[in-house]
Amino acid sequence: MVYHSPMIWNEDLTNTLDAVRCWSYEGGVVRETEKEACTEEVVVIVLNNRPISTLVASPVQLRELGAGFVVSEGLAGEIQDVQVQGLTVQVTATERSGSLSSIIESCGGPTSGTLMSHVKSSLVIEQELIFTVISAIVSELWERTGGAHCSVLFSGGELVAKSSDIGRHNTVDKVIGHALLNGIDLSGCVLGCTGRQPSGMITKAANAGIPIVVSKAATTRQGAETAQRAGLTLVGRVKQDSFCVYSHPERIAGLVPGNSPYSGGSLTDPQG
Amino acid sequence: MVYHSPMIWNEDLTNTLDAVRCWSYEGGVVRETEKEACTEEVVVIVLNNRPISTLVASPVQLRELGAGFVVSEGLAGEIQDVQVQGLTVQVTATERSGSLSSIIESCGGPTSGTLMSHVKSSLVIEQELIFTVISAIVSELWERTGGAHCSVLFSGGELVAKSSDIGRHNTVDKVIGHALLNGIDLSGCVLGCTGRQPSGMITKAANAGIPIVVSKAATTRQGAETAQRAGLTLVGRVKQDSFCVYSHPERIAGLVPGNSPYSGGSLTDPQG
Repeated sequence: MVYHSPMIWNEDLTNTLDAVRCWSYEGGVVRETEKEACTEEVVVIVLNNRPISTLVASPVQLRELGAGFVVSEGLAGEIQDVQVQGLTVQVTATERSGSLSSIIESCGGPTSGTLMSHVKSSLVIEQELIFTVISAIVSELWERTGGAHCSVLFSGGELVAKSSDIGRHNTVDKVIGHALLNGIDLSGCVLGCTGRQPSGMITKAANAGIPIVVSKAATTRQGAETAQRAGLTLVGRVKQDSFCVYSHPERIAGLVPGNSPYSGGSLTDPQG
Repeated sequence: MVYHSPMIWNEDLTNTLDAVRCWSYEGGVVRETEKEACTEEVVVIVLNNRPISTLVASPVQLRELGAGFVVSEGLAGEIQDVQVQGLTVQVTATERSGSLSSIIESCGGPTSGTLMSHVKSSLVIEQELIFTVISAIVSELWERTGGAHCSVLFSGGELVAKSSDIGRHNTVDKVIGHALLNGIDLSGCVLGCTGRQPSGMITKAANAGIPIVVSKAATTRQGAETAQRAGLTLVGRVKQDSFCVYSHPERIAGLVPGNSPYSGGSLTDPQG
């Protein structure tokens, strides 16, 4: 390979972020507003005319993604050509001997997790419980290693399950599994998670029938949309005295009049 | 489903963490020491006698993982039985109509990425570059959305590529892809990443021929082992004036005598 002088190539924000409508709670005041969120798309990588992987990715620099992926995964050596058509990346490259049988998912979340259920639950919680759930996300594994995620599950206002794991998705699966194996009704539960909530994470909670998901971190545009479609209440960006509700605010007491099932109505805005 | 009273179930640290040997640099002093790191294992989920997924996970609570996974991914409804044999979880459950064709990977990193290459590089860097690389990991996408990862690539001491993406692995693939498409010699590069370095991330860098990986965050036991085996220098837990080198410290100037290729020798210890 011929060596050229280094070439600066910076992050590209084209099509990577979008505005998401939400209800922002700050110091007792609720306002309908917008927050910026990442967008996520399912990208298909094709190597020498065979689809080899679907990745959940920010939809920019897909040529680079395709070229890098086949080499970094040990599937190919030299790159001959990369063509991008929509969200499909066609890579022509010298294949290395090895398995191409696996479908690999990126960290954005599994794409095979199909949203199967609309959440059915009349659960309504007090705003205070949001902060209680977040404060319960304390993991000794994280404190000792600096490399773990944590999920918690609350039922009837009480902590019923906590799990730490190197995989963010695994912590969610494990607390859901605990509830399933012990007859705890997931339709009465609140799930608290570390980290971001892309659509794959919301899909997991919705398929298990959990009505409320709470996270310190942000969601993606598709995560918020999935939550709205699934009938799930998504609360994110929880801080000391503030949070954002991205979908179905009627399950948080005091945010909408009468705590009635969501009917497309707007929130009570003390400022409006 | 019968509703029982809530049952507390806490995180389980059994077999989830281990001690990893490393070279700790603090304020100019290097010491050979040990740090705790997560352990990661490849767990196979079997649903009604068909293997459906391999997950990179902390090897605890595998019954709960299996039960939760098949429901949260929308593959099954009621759980009948879960049996764990080693790292294989056999779930018997009522399947939901839907695809079982995909193999889903967790956030711990893809397992199909086979380590194909031993890194060949005579690159040696000054300690100062470690802090420069970390300080270059600044992402506007993260600042605006709170939900993105970032990777940077340095060549000849200069920033040559930076990528932000919702997927941690994608940012690595994209900067590697940029180098491949622009003839930048990866054997002379340093990769800087946000977030943890499990074996899947190290495998990507090694397969691309990158000799040095730097991260603010921690590695797993298997990540450190993969880096050692691949001939790759892994630097983690970088802070204001400290870092840990988990493998092949000979590429960091001043840490080992003569900067010679690693021969199993110990580090120069100014305290010893």
